[in-house]
Amino acid sequence: MTKKKIFNIAIVGLGNIGTYLYNFLKKNKNLINNKNNNTFKIKYISAKNKRKKRKISFRKNLWIDNYMSLTKMKDVDIIIELIGGSDGPAKKLVFSALKNKKHVITANKALISKYGDKLSKIAEKNKVNLEYEAAVCGGVPIIRMIKESLIGNKVNKIFGIFNGTSNYILSSMEKNKISFNDTLSVAKKLGYAESNPKSDIDGDDVSSKVKILSSLCFGSFVNSNIHVEGIRSIDNEDIINASKLGFKIKLLGFSEIINNKLYQRVHPTFVKKSSYIASVDGVLNAVIVDGSPIGKNIIQGEGAGATATTSALVADISSILRGNIKKPFGISHSKRKKITSGKIDNLYFSSYVRINVKDKYGVLSDITRIFSTNKVSIKRVLQNPYKKYSSILIITHSCKDADIQKTLKTLAKKSYIIQKPKIIRIENG
Amino acid sequence: MTKKKIFNIAIVGLGNIGTYLYNFLKKNKNLINNKNNNTFKIKYISAKNKRKKRKISFRKNLWIDNYMSLTKMKDVDIIIELIGGSDGPAKKLVFSALKNKKHVITANKALISKYGDKLSKIAEKNKVNLEYEAAVCGGVPIIRMIKESLIGNKVNKIFGIFNGTSNYILSSMEKNKISFNDTLSVAKKLGYAESNPKSDIDGDDVSSKVKILSSLCFGSFVNSNIHVEGIRSIDNEDIINASKLGFKIKLLGFSEIINNKLYQRVHPTFVKKSSYIASVDGVLNAVIVDGSPIGKNIIQGEGAGATATTSALVADISSILRGNIKKPFGISHSKRKKITSGKIDNLYFSSYVRINVKDKYGVLSDITRIFSTNKVSIKRVLQNPYKKYSSILIITHSCKDADIQKTLKTLAKKSYIIQKPKIIRIENG
Repeated sequence: MTKKKIFNIAIVGLGNIGTYLYNFLKKNKNLINNKNNNTFKIKYISAKNKRKKRKISFRKNLWIDNYMSLTKMKDVDIIIELIGGSDGPAKKLVFSALKNKKHVITANKALISKYGDKLSKIAEKNKVNLEYEAAVCGGVPIIRMIKESLIGNKVNKIFGIFNGTSNYILSSMEKNKISFNDTLSVAKKLGYAESNPKSDIDGDDVSSKVKILSSLCFGSFVNSNIHVEGIRSIDNEDIINASKLGFKIKLLGFSEIINNKLYQRVHPTFVKKSSYIASVDGVLNAVIVDGSPIGKNIIQGEGAGATATTSALVADISSILRGNIKKPFGISHSKRKKITSGKIDNLYFSSYVRINVKDKYGVLSDITRIFSTNKVSIKRVLQNPYKKYSSILIITHSCKDADIQKTLKTLAKKSYIIQKPKIIRIENG
Repeated sequence: MTKKKIFNIAIVGLGNIGTYLYNFLKKNKNLINNKNNNTFKIKYISAKNKRKKRKISFRKNLWIDNYMSLTKMKDVDIIIELIGGSDGPAKKLVFSALKNKKHVITANKALISKYGDKLSKIAEKNKVNLEYEAAVCGGVPIIRMIKESLIGNKVNKIFGIFNGTSNYILSSMEKNKISFNDTLSVAKKLGYAESNPKSDIDGDDVSSKVKILSSLCFGSFVNSNIHVEGIRSIDNEDIINASKLGFKIKLLGFSEIINNKLYQRVHPTFVKKSSYIASVDGVLNAVIVDGSPIGKNIIQGEGAGATATTSALVADISSILRGNIKKPFGISHSKRKKITSGKIDNLYFSSYVRINVKDKYGVLSDITRIFSTNKVSIKRVLQNPYKKYSSILIITHSCKDADIQKTLKTLAKKSYIIQKPKIIRIENG
């Protein structure tokens, strides 16, 4: 037998995930080591504040005050970065670690989507791993699936529910018929939303994940051209309208290649109630990959949380212990390509448009004229009368997104409009 | 850079899958080689009949008449076995290949579920890979997911739809309201069922997959104690009854650990219409894994066919090119354990029971008495009158399977019974 090597691990960042991982690794050391060719040992841990109360116990000599010193220590092989944030200490740590030939594991989607190209180049040059399964949909092992299980496939499209917080909010609004803000408060209390939920509800978190997945699926550098809309503007009226029309509203991320151009987008989407994606409720995440020759694959699981994330981190550790793939984005940096991105304006959607107007003569006639002038063909109209206004709902036939945006701009200037017109795109199939 | 090694591949078996794989590898050589540390070359091909018409072209010196000679040839590194069958040539080839230190890739579930333990021992001893992603639900990369992505998890239960043919038949019977036999004929015409569909419709194919998945999930040797029922006895009346009661019928495979015992079973199952698994129709496969810490994971895709299977085979080839995991069942042969199996008799289910009886006085009273005597509590009764008989449907409360089997045995002897009473278990959640 070849002699087993012991990989020394340093964990930096001991929040919710870091402490769970530490305890899990201690408890399940044999389980993990039995499954890999080499073994690991937790050598060091580090965090901002040593005296903070944490549910962990450790020998004194495990603690390192200056986390940056870990990147130069000879008895460190793997650094697990659980600090978070695209810049600041996380960035400093990961760049320095890779430069000093340490393997790096991170759960940091902001960092990978911003600096992934630079980082992967260094990792590859220094023949160390940069692993980030935990950065995209924690309990949905989509990174390894694309890099290994679907390695022979040409991916055409990848999309899905990539954010548990926003999915929880939209599902709850539908189920409990309460407002966005009230739902958000509940989500915070239950720990499903952070105190500052901006990144989750404005689509930025999904945006990071879409960018990472695009690079993996299409063998391209990270492309930051992406159309992003969050869920702040969705209200109960939209949810009820969707339901009446046979739909649910989901915040989806999409990435696809059409005519050799990359289209990345994140926006609330009408999905048919009977579709698979509509059934994914609460904090769950789901990814749908359409590739050739494999066809359509679905993978669903818990998107975040200490338990699901730890499962991903352990998969990353194990991959390093086995000396598996050392190309962070599946192919060599030198083989990755720049990919031209297309604008959402040029895509075609059937859309839901909601226009709140003063209730007076001629309005509907003017609105339908504006649609027609802009080449947007109407499939269905519904008018809901409310006390102080009327709400006009229009489902369009498939039309160019630019045309519908023009339509909305024109409408917005009209005196009878009492609220910015709203569009929610419809996903077919 | 370390020098890349070229792995010479021999493909044995050139049916539907073998020819597709051959053409795919030729066309996508660069794509695959760019993603791995080492490269491959198709060195030899072999099949029973050289003169058979196939959609492939190859240089003369690629063909080998005596496939067994490949196992001793120095310029062969990987043998891909696509012959099929648990014994005969496939068995001979794979045993000999591993003994002669060749990596082996196979899509042969019958072989792995029967000889997997012996084969994996030889592979491990000789430090070669034995890969079989394609053997279990072709386009659903569940093998690699368990071995790598969920490596840190303790799996509690795994179940799902593991056979496309039977799922197609049950879905079609429901959708088109036609009989089992007529549906089977259509399935054969469409290529969804083989000319001899026994293994697919009698549950043996699912049984092989369940046994393999159990070994992987629970770190145990292959255990052949499994309860198997197929779908031959399901008729349109059952499908209609299920629908009326809010269910669909699916052929499911299950493996779980309860009180340290392994329970493996394959049987038609009532699943709630609103459940995820009920939505998986046609030839699709789906696997649900419940593990700790990851929680519940779902993975869905095409279960079979040349395209999906090729995706799996290429993942296996790539894993060998990267020198990844060499333990066919995830852990060392020496660490695998024997696991005691439990009997389905001791499990508790709520069940659907259908009893076709002569329409006369006192029958229902006698039937309910027999249920009661055997400690089977009735939740719901429905009686459908037909021209020549009555069909009594009973949904039981959760009860011991042995008790319900006893009930059915007693019933079967009664003079008013005109057809063997039928039980279909109900899956909750």
